[in-house]
Amino acid sequence: MTDTLERNETHRLISSEKVEGTAVYSPESDKLGTVSHVMIDKRSGQAEYAVLEFGGLFGIGSDHYPIPWDMLSYDTDKGGYIVNLSKEQIEGAPRYQRDSMPVYDDNYGRTVFSYYGLNYPAL
Amino acid sequence: MTDTLERNETHRLISSEKVEGTAVYSPESDKLGTVSHVMIDKRSGQAEYAVLEFGGLFGIGSDHYPIPWDMLSYDTDKGGYIVNLSKEQIEGAPRYQRDSMPVYDDNYGRTVFSYYGLNYPAL
Repeated sequence: MTDTLERNETHRLISSEKVEGTAVYSPESDKLGTVSHVMIDKRSGQAEYAVLEFGGLFGIGSDHYPIPWDMLSYDTDKGGYIVNLSKEQIEGAPRYQRDSMPVYDDNYGRTVFSYYGLNYPAL
Repeated sequence: MTDTLERNETHRLISSEKVEGTAVYSPESDKLGTVSHVMIDKRSGQAEYAVLEFGGLFGIGSDHYPIPWDMLSYDTDKGGYIVNLSKEQIEGAPRYQRDSMPVYDDNYGRTVFSYYGLNYPAL
């Protein structure tokens, strides 16, 4: 990890500007893509989704994939996030084009969370 | 609030890209500045600070002020955050130049939180 990264990823905190663009890897260390941005609860400040941008691998375009934040784990050595997604999961996953952001309402939240076998947060 | 804003601030979630640049107001509705970025716990996804960029008002330059996230409240009507800071608090507040980001370690965290009379999170 370089000095530059250390300045921006000091200890357990990371700047939102830095999360955007951070690499995302499969558990097998294949680079899947990057974090496009994070969807944050305005009031609590809790990140609810990392919106990933996948491209290239598996012949997938640059669609946006909202992933529940807890599915990501940060790997300090790699300087990126690991997400446990199979090719099959990605192929069928909820996604959208950059300019077609859906309404992130409870219905959409339930769709995404249930796709990954998770309970939608009761907030 | 415009359609564009609604698309990016749907319901209770907001994109990190949208938080960056969101206006910050005093309780008296004076615009203090904007959110430069958010410092997020890499693992939990919890926003710990909004780093504010103040300029102009009170003759303050464009220093960066880390503010504990819970001090901000979101005002849907204004489409921005309200922060309850007095001129005196801002004048003495922990701050840094854009290119001189401090190490956000526990010591710095305690300095910032205690300045605002808050307990540093036990994490």
